[in-house]
Amino acid sequence: MQFHLNGFTPGDPELAVSQRQSVNAVAPRALPEKVDVLIVGCGPAGLTLAAQLARFANIKTCIIDKKPGPLQLGQADGIACRSLEMFNAFGFAERVLKEAYWVNETVFWKPDTRKPANILRSGRVQDTEDGLSEFPHVILNQARVHDFFLTSMRQAETGLAPYYSSTLVHIEVPEKAFASISDLTPISVTVEQATAKGEREKHTMQATFVIGCDGARSQVRQSIGLKLEGDSASQLWGVMDVLVVTDFPDIRTKCLIQSDQNGSIIVIPREGGYLVRIYVELDKLAPGERVADRQLTSDDVVTAAQRVFHPYSFDVKEVVWWSAYEIGQRLCRRFDNVEIGDESTPRVFIAGDACHTHSPKAGQGMNVSMRDSFNLGWKLASVLRGIASPALLNTYSAERHGVAAELIAFDREWARIVSATGDAASAASGHDNDRSQEFQQYFVRHGRYTAGTSIQYHTSIICADTAFQYLATGFDIGTRFHSAMVTRVADAKPVQLGHVVEADGRWRLMVFDGPGEKISESIPGMAALQHHAVELLSLSQSLIEWATFMVKSAYSPLIRYGFANADIDANIDCRFIIQAPHQQFTVESLPESVRSLLQPSKGTLGLIDYEKVFSAAVRDHENIYDSRAIDKENGCVVIVRPDQHIADVLPLSATDRLAVFFDRFMLPVSA
Amino acid sequence: MQFHLNGFTPGDPELAVSQRQSVNAVAPRALPEKVDVLIVGCGPAGLTLAAQLARFANIKTCIIDKKPGPLQLGQADGIACRSLEMFNAFGFAERVLKEAYWVNETVFWKPDTRKPANILRSGRVQDTEDGLSEFPHVILNQARVHDFFLTSMRQAETGLAPYYSSTLVHIEVPEKAFASISDLTPISVTVEQATAKGEREKHTMQATFVIGCDGARSQVRQSIGLKLEGDSASQLWGVMDVLVVTDFPDIRTKCLIQSDQNGSIIVIPREGGYLVRIYVELDKLAPGERVADRQLTSDDVVTAAQRVFHPYSFDVKEVVWWSAYEIGQRLCRRFDNVEIGDESTPRVFIAGDACHTHSPKAGQGMNVSMRDSFNLGWKLASVLRGIASPALLNTYSAERHGVAAELIAFDREWARIVSATGDAASAASGHDNDRSQEFQQYFVRHGRYTAGTSIQYHTSIICADTAFQYLATGFDIGTRFHSAMVTRVADAKPVQLGHVVEADGRWRLMVFDGPGEKISESIPGMAALQHHAVELLSLSQSLIEWATFMVKSAYSPLIRYGFANADIDANIDCRFIIQAPHQQFTVESLPESVRSLLQPSKGTLGLIDYEKVFSAAVRDHENIYDSRAIDKENGCVVIVRPDQHIADVLPLSATDRLAVFFDRFMLPVSA
Repeated sequence: MQFHLNGFTPGDPELAVSQRQSVNAVAPRALPEKVDVLIVGCGPAGLTLAAQLARFANIKTCIIDKKPGPLQLGQADGIACRSLEMFNAFGFAERVLKEAYWVNETVFWKPDTRKPANILRSGRVQDTEDGLSEFPHVILNQARVHDFFLTSMRQAETGLAPYYSSTLVHIEVPEKAFASISDLTPISVTVEQATAKGEREKHTMQATFVIGCDGARSQVRQSIGLKLEGDSASQLWGVMDVLVVTDFPDIRTKCLIQSDQNGSIIVIPREGGYLVRIYVELDKLAPGERVADRQLTSDDVVTAAQRVFHPYSFDVKEVVWWSAYEIGQRLCRRFDNVEIGDESTPRVFIAGDACHTHSPKAGQGMNVSMRDSFNLGWKLASVLRGIASPALLNTYSAERHGVAAELIAFDREWARIVSATGDAASAASGHDNDRSQEFQQYFVRHGRYTAGTSIQYHTSIICADTAFQYLATGFDIGTRFHSAMVTRVADAKPVQLGHVVEADGRWRLMVFDGPGEKISESIPGMAALQHHAVELLSLSQSLIEWATFMVKSAYSPLIRYGFANADIDANIDCRFIIQAPHQQFTVESLPESVRSLLQPSKGTLGLIDYEKVFSAAVRDHENIYDSRAIDKENGCVVIVRPDQHIADVLPLSATDRLAVFFDRFMLPVSA
Repeated sequence: MQFHLNGFTPGDPELAVSQRQSVNAVAPRALPEKVDVLIVGCGPAGLTLAAQLARFANIKTCIIDKKPGPLQLGQADGIACRSLEMFNAFGFAERVLKEAYWVNETVFWKPDTRKPANILRSGRVQDTEDGLSEFPHVILNQARVHDFFLTSMRQAETGLAPYYSSTLVHIEVPEKAFASISDLTPISVTVEQATAKGEREKHTMQATFVIGCDGARSQVRQSIGLKLEGDSASQLWGVMDVLVVTDFPDIRTKCLIQSDQNGSIIVIPREGGYLVRIYVELDKLAPGERVADRQLTSDDVVTAAQRVFHPYSFDVKEVVWWSAYEIGQRLCRRFDNVEIGDESTPRVFIAGDACHTHSPKAGQGMNVSMRDSFNLGWKLASVLRGIASPALLNTYSAERHGVAAELIAFDREWARIVSATGDAASAASGHDNDRSQEFQQYFVRHGRYTAGTSIQYHTSIICADTAFQYLATGFDIGTRFHSAMVTRVADAKPVQLGHVVEADGRWRLMVFDGPGEKISESIPGMAALQHHAVELLSLSQSLIEWATFMVKSAYSPLIRYGFANADIDANIDCRFIIQAPHQQFTVESLPESVRSLLQPSKGTLGLIDYEKVFSAAVRDHENIYDSRAIDKENGCVVIVRPDQHIADVLPLSATDRLAVFFDRFMLPVSA
C-alpha cells in the first residue's frame, strides 16, 4: 500500500482522504460509578489490557485518558515479531501486516576513510533471523496500533470505549487485605472530567483493581509510593517523521549511519512508501540541563540530519511530527502496590512506561508495554471470573520486572554502541571499521531480543521447572509457544498451530501423540473409509489413556476447573497433534468418551467442533516434531498459558502432575 | 475463525454477536437527477462495477436495487482463485482469506458395491492444482462478499452507497448515435422508489450509460429487446445451508457423494467451522412442470439428504437458508444494445445473471458475474474520463459473451456427470466405479476452468496477436497476468509482482530486463555503495534505450496519453524487473531521464516513488524468469490491462509496436 504521497493524513489509509473523519476530540460521557477494573491511560499498555478485558461479558472495565481523543501522530512505531504474534491473538495481525512497512534488512553506513566527511555503505544484514517467528518485524504508526485495539474493544462482547478528557486525581487504596473477590473493600478513585463546556467536574468511582498505564509521569505509580529509578545519560536525540526528497540510496531501508564528526542517525522507513522516521544524535546536555532549555526547533533536527547524510541531499518537504529527548534508562523496583516478599494480593498495578523508560531507538517501548498488560490481562480476568486464585496476581510484577530489567540493560548497551562517536583519528586508523563491526555483530546477536521472542519467565506457580523439558527441547518452558505449520485434519487446511491461542483467557494443552496405532479393517465402518487401500491410523494407547483421564477422572483439570454446563473447552482447550498424514487419521474407532474430547459437542445446538486435531505432516513445511525436537516415540503435553507462554512440558503418562499444576492456582467450579 | 456455533447470525463475524447491527432495510434517499452511470442491481456484478467506478472522483455513479437493504443470507458462496486475485486488486482479499472456508481437497463417495444402500469413500483429490494462483479456492457467504464491496465503495473517493427499494420502470435509449462523450443525448430512465411511508414515487433520471446487473429476470435486458436462450434440463435440485450434527466423517471437506438409488449430494463446508451447504439432487420435473408446483419444504430437502448419507446420521439443528431450483443453462446472444457487427457505441450493457444462467454447483455464478463487470468497469471509466475512445466499449460484449458460452458448455457437462444416476445393476457390475472415475478425471481436468484462471480473451484492439509470445511463454496473451514472487529492490521486501495491478483503471507495463550491465567503481559515487566488494549492476543498454524512448519520444504512450501536469504513471504504470539480486542493483549510474522513470517524482510534494523496481531473485521462491519462461537474454515488455489480463508481449526494441498498440484506443491528452 502506498499513501501519504501528497502529505501526511491521519487515519485508516484504506479510506480515501476525503472519506476520513478526523477524531481529535470525543464528546465526554458520564463515567461509571463502580467497575471491576479502572485502567488509567490509553497508550499501548492500557489499550492492550482494555482489549483483553473487553472480551469478558461479566467484567466491567473503564479506561480513561486525559487527552481529548485518540492519538493521531507520532510516538512509537516499531512492532516486533512477538507483538505481531500477540496482535494475531487479538485478531488484527493481518491488517497490521498489510499496512505496515516490513523491515527486511538493515544497512550500515560509516565515514569514508579516504574522505571522512562523506559516508559509505559498510554492510547489510537480514533483519530477522530465519525461523524466529512466523511474523516479520514491521513499522507502523502507534496511532494505527491504537486504532486496531480500539476497534477490537468496540467489536468485543462488552463494546468498550475509552472515556477521554478524564484525569486521575486521587486513589484511596483500602488497608484491608484481599479476602476474596466477592468480599473486599473497593478502591475509591477520584477522576476529573472536562465537560463539553470546558468545565472540570469531579467524579468518584469504586474499582476492584486500578491499573496505571499512564506513562513515565504516572499518577498511579506516585499514588502507591513508587518512582522510576536510574540515570539519565544526558545524550540528546532528535526524532522526526518526515516526507523527504533525497538521493541517499537506502532511504527505504532501515539504516544505521555513523558519521565522522556529526554523530549518528537511524533511518526507519515508514508505512505507505514515502514517510520516514529519522533519529538524529544531537549534543550532550550539560549537567542539570533539560531538553526544554535548548529551545530546539524541527529545523535544528533537520540541519543535524543533513550534516550526517553528506554528501547526499536531504530535502525535507514536510515534518509530520518531531520531538527531542534525552536518553534515560529508568526502572521501578516493583509493578504493584505490594512490597516484594509480601504475599498479600495486589490491588493496584502499573504497566508500560509507568514502570520503565528507555530510549526509543531499539524499537522496544511499545512492544514491552503491550506485553506487560498482555501478561496482566488474563490474570485479572481469571481472578475476577472466579476461576483462579488471587495469588495469580502476584506473578505479574515478578515476571514483568525481570523482563524490564533485561530491556534496560539491553537499551543501555545499544545506546552506548550507537552513540560512540568516531573521530577523524579513529577513522583514519581503521578503528572506525572496528566500531562498525562491533555494532553489526551486536545487532545480529541481539536480534532475538529485539524480536521479543527470547523473553523467558522464571519458575512460579504458573511456570514449571524443566523436569520434562527433554520431551520437546524446542518448546523452552517460560518462553512463548513458538508456532509451526500443521495440517488441520478435518479440512486439510495448512495452519499455524500457535494461532489457536487466541486472547480469550483460556489455557491450551497441546497434546503431541506418539506414532499412533493402525486400525483394522474389520472394525465396523472402517472398510468404508479405506479408499485405494489407504492404511488408517488412530491415536496411540497412551493418548487414549490420557484422554480417558481427562474426560472421566475426578482429578481431571477439565472437570475440576470447567464451568458447570459449559463447553468442555471453556477454560482449558485441548488440541491434538498426530504424526500420521491427515488422509490416514481416523477417529471412528475411538471410544465415544475419547472422541468427545477430539470432536466435542458444543454450544446451545450441540454442534461438533472439528478443529481440535492436527497432523504434523504438512506440505512444503518442516514437521513440527523435527523443528521443535518433540519426542516422536512418546509424544508429550505442552501446557500453554493464555498469554501464549509455555508453562510446562509433561509426559502423556504424567496426568498426576498435570492435575497438580492446575491445582496450584485454579479454583474448582462451584456447580 | 470459528463462528455460528449457537446458530447463524448475519454480519461481520469479527464483531461479537451483541455488537452486530442488522441492516435489513436502509432508509430511502433522494435519487440523483443526472448520472454518468446507472447500475441496476446490487448483486455481485453490480457491486463489482460500483466499487470500480467509485474510485474515480469525476465519475457520477448511481446504483439501485429493488430490495430494501443489503443481502443477509444464502445464494452463491464459491470464490474461485481468480476472484480472489480480483478482490486483491480491490484491497480486501486478506479479509476474505481470513473469514472464508478454504477448499483444500475434494473427497468422492460412491455406493458400497457389497451393500449398495451404504456409501463409501472412493477417492480424494487436491482441490486446486499447484501453482495455479497465489490464492486458494475458498467458500464464503455471498452477503459477506457484498459487504466487502459495499465497504470498498464507501471508503473510495466518491463514498458511494446504493439506493435501495428502487425499481427500474422504464429505459428510453436515444436513437442518435454516440458522437463523443461530451456531446450526446442522455438515456432517460424511470425509477420507482418506495418511500419511508411505504408509498411508491416515480423519479426520472438521465444517465450516459445504464448497466443491467439485475439478474435472470433482468428488466434492463428486456428493455433492449434481448432474452435468455437455452434449455432447462428439468432436473430438480435442493440447496440448503445447515447447522448439522452428523457422524459422516468428511463433513468438513468438500464431497461429491453418489448414492445408489437416491441421487447425488454435493457437500460444501462453509466459513466459521460449523455451517455446511448441501446440494441435493431431487426428482426430475415432468414436462411443463415448474419448481413451485412441487410445493417443497426444507424438510423435503433434509429427508432427501438423509437418504443419500445412509448409513451415516444427519441431524439438522438449524436450516439457515434453503431453496429448490431446476438446472438450466441459458445465454443471451449479446451483452449490450448494439447489434453484432454494428460498430456504434453501446449505451446499455447487461452483466452477470442477466446475460447467463447456469446451475450453481460448479461454483461459477458469482465469479463469472463479478468478472463480467470487472471487464466493463475500467472501459466505462476510461471512456468517461476521456482517455480512451468509445470503441473500447464494443469489446465488452465480444469478450464476455465468449466466456459465458464456455461456462455454459462446462456447466452442462458438469451437471450431466453429477446427475448421472447409478443403479444397482451398474453398481454390481462395476460400472459404478467407472462413473466415479470419469467424474474424478473430469474434476481434475477442469480444475483450471473452475479456478477461473484459464479464461483467455481473443484478439481485439486491446488484445494483441501472438507475434512475440515466444519471449515469455508463461504469460499467455489474453489470459490474466499470472503473478509470481519477486523482491522489491528499495526495501528488500518479497512481494507478488501481480499485486501491483490494483483496480485503479491504469495499464501496466511489466518491463523485464536482460542480464543488466556491470557498473565501474570509477563512476562518481559508486565506490561508496560497494560494501564488501559487492559487484554493482544496472540496467541493460536495451532497457536504457527503451526507457529513454518512454520519457523523451513524442511517440511515447506515457507522453501522448498521460495527463498534463499529472504523475508520469497516472494512466500507464511502468514496473521494472531485473535479474540481479536486489543488493547488487543500483540506479545511481543511470541518466537522470531514465532514473525519472524508475524512481519518479510524484504528487504535490514531488516525493520519489521507490516501488517501481523488482528483482527476480527472491528467497524460497522460483525465479519469475524460470516460472514464466521469460527470455533471459533479451527480456521483454508485458502489457497488462487494468483488469489484469495480458494484452501483449513485446521485445524491448519494439517501441514502435508499443506506441501503435495504445494508439488504437487511447485518446491523446488535450493539455
